[in-house]
Amino acid sequence: MAPITPSLELVSAVLAGQARAIARLISRAEAGEAEVRPAMASIYQHTGRAHIVGITGVPGSGKSSLIDLLVPRARERGKTVGVVAVDPSSPFSGGSILGDRIRMGDLALDPGVFIRSMATRGALGGLARATHDAVDLLDAGGFDLVLLETVGVGQDEVDIVRAAHTVVVVSAPGLGDDIQAIKAGILEIADIHVVSKADRADAGKTVKELKTMLAMDLPFKKATEWTIPVLSTSTVKAEGIDALLDMLEKHRETLERTGEIARRRESIAETRLLKTAQAVLHGEFEKQRDGKVSSLIARVVARELDPHGAALELLAALKSGMS
Amino acid sequence: MAPITPSLELVSAVLAGQARAIARLISRAEAGEAEVRPAMASIYQHTGRAHIVGITGVPGSGKSSLIDLLVPRARERGKTVGVVAVDPSSPFSGGSILGDRIRMGDLALDPGVFIRSMATRGALGGLARATHDAVDLLDAGGFDLVLLETVGVGQDEVDIVRAAHTVVVVSAPGLGDDIQAIKAGILEIADIHVVSKADRADAGKTVKELKTMLAMDLPFKKATEWTIPVLSTSTVKAEGIDALLDMLEKHRETLERTGEIARRRESIAETRLLKTAQAVLHGEFEKQRDGKVSSLIARVVARELDPHGAALELLAALKSGMS
Repeated sequence: MAPITPSLELVSAVLAGQARAIARLISRAEAGEAEVRPAMASIYQHTGRAHIVGITGVPGSGKSSLIDLLVPRARERGKTVGVVAVDPSSPFSGGSILGDRIRMGDLALDPGVFIRSMATRGALGGLARATHDAVDLLDAGGFDLVLLETVGVGQDEVDIVRAAHTVVVVSAPGLGDDIQAIKAGILEIADIHVVSKADRADAGKTVKELKTMLAMDLPFKKATEWTIPVLSTSTVKAEGIDALLDMLEKHRETLERTGEIARRRESIAETRLLKTAQAVLHGEFEKQRDGKVSSLIARVVARELDPHGAALELLAALKSGMS
Repeated sequence: MAPITPSLELVSAVLAGQARAIARLISRAEAGEAEVRPAMASIYQHTGRAHIVGITGVPGSGKSSLIDLLVPRARERGKTVGVVAVDPSSPFSGGSILGDRIRMGDLALDPGVFIRSMATRGALGGLARATHDAVDLLDAGGFDLVLLETVGVGQDEVDIVRAAHTVVVVSAPGLGDDIQAIKAGILEIADIHVVSKADRADAGKTVKELKTMLAMDLPFKKATEWTIPVLSTSTVKAEGIDALLDMLEKHRETLERTGEIARRRESIAETRLLKTAQAVLHGEFEKQRDGKVSSLIARVVARELDPHGAALELLAALKSGMS
């Protein structure tokens, strides 16, 4: 059966915050179905209300445990919370539904919470697009706070998390120098630093290192009135969670008050526009895989044509076919 | 001063294996200079001789230490060795020259060794392209073995390492469940598994876990006659390095004998073609940032247009301007 364009009823159900409708459209967006585009265009008009918070950190930094505590605390404050977790470790496409349910635990029956994992596999270069679609669906569905969780290594993940109003970078104490160095790559995008596992003896050292790094006059240091804080949390002792929620709120208020929010919205739109265009290009590439693309590949393999020359020919050829 | 198209002399110097010429062209490719394209097209015609080996693993897996031992051992076997390390942790664009020199140590004076780090920053979406350019330059420059080192997390890094004939995935014992799970994302691309730090007591457990994973009938298991080995190395004791070099050689021979090499070359050309086309698109996007692109961004911010609709308009607009 051919995929069907989502009905107006489904879009209305999303706008009413119905979890099943949101889940269904996320799955279809993740599968790369072209038929969901008109629905997503309607959905997009209703976005812009949620506070989108990116939470990133290397594997083992403790970001998932932190989110698992953040969600119920935010609920206690009367906020509805959506979580979109980009999970490069999952070998399954279409979201790990079972994993999401296990993770939700007691929250599984709360309609004010929605948790969804996005798998890298199966997304065919469209992971960023599908992730942003999921965030849009939760935003339009009326969730107050949308947490976007990614592993903080790799350009794709950094680009994904850039589509947040507030970016939290989580570091664990004592993960080794190799991992500490990686932080430099995501230092630039942090609005708030969190050192997890504050119950550990070496947590203070990591806090100090981060503060030293922030005090350095790095070329990419942000010129805003926001001073990037370094917070400590302990999921074992359930400490520091409220302070983090307060800080998220404070960052949002600062964005609004200083007008910085407009610059952020523009930067988010820019990243999404470019990434979506690249995803559309990828889709066309796949569609023409047996035609023009395959002859170009053969010429590159034979060293008759270099990859750059072939790319220019490809882009010229796509002009005719693209819709 | 406007950038100058690299001269025929510079191309000849690269083909003669001169390190300074190679380094200069890598820097210019990394900076995204359009002027290097004709030179790179000439260079590309002279590639295809080197054995390109991708070495990947999560931060802390010990891949850099392993490479630091692999290089002198390969030299003892009479092979010249180039290393291209994609380093997302570096906040500096243009390669960390000082770091490369420190890393080279005693090898710094050996013309049969070339080590270069590629920084994520500054590459503006063109990291994959610049990395492949660097590999091409080393290949055309006559290096027998080209090691391509990346952090094995994130789609970009996985795509980069796919451009190797042989992929080695390095895992350290006891890096925690979170990191073990990440392996699932790169399990698919490994031709050879290496468990580093074999001097540690828990290394045997990691070897066993990997073998169990490989024995599972996973959907992405490769249908070739190559049985993916799990090797152990210890950089502290300098053990297992020769066995790994032997296995690299054996894998290359198997690729050639079974004809699998042709399929690999095609797959490499396919990935490079797509990534290069996306990088060209990104370049056009930057060029038109003040024109068409900025009005599209404004409409996306105002919710007058959704990102997908804007991407289609962008691609249509680029048709006229692209060269």
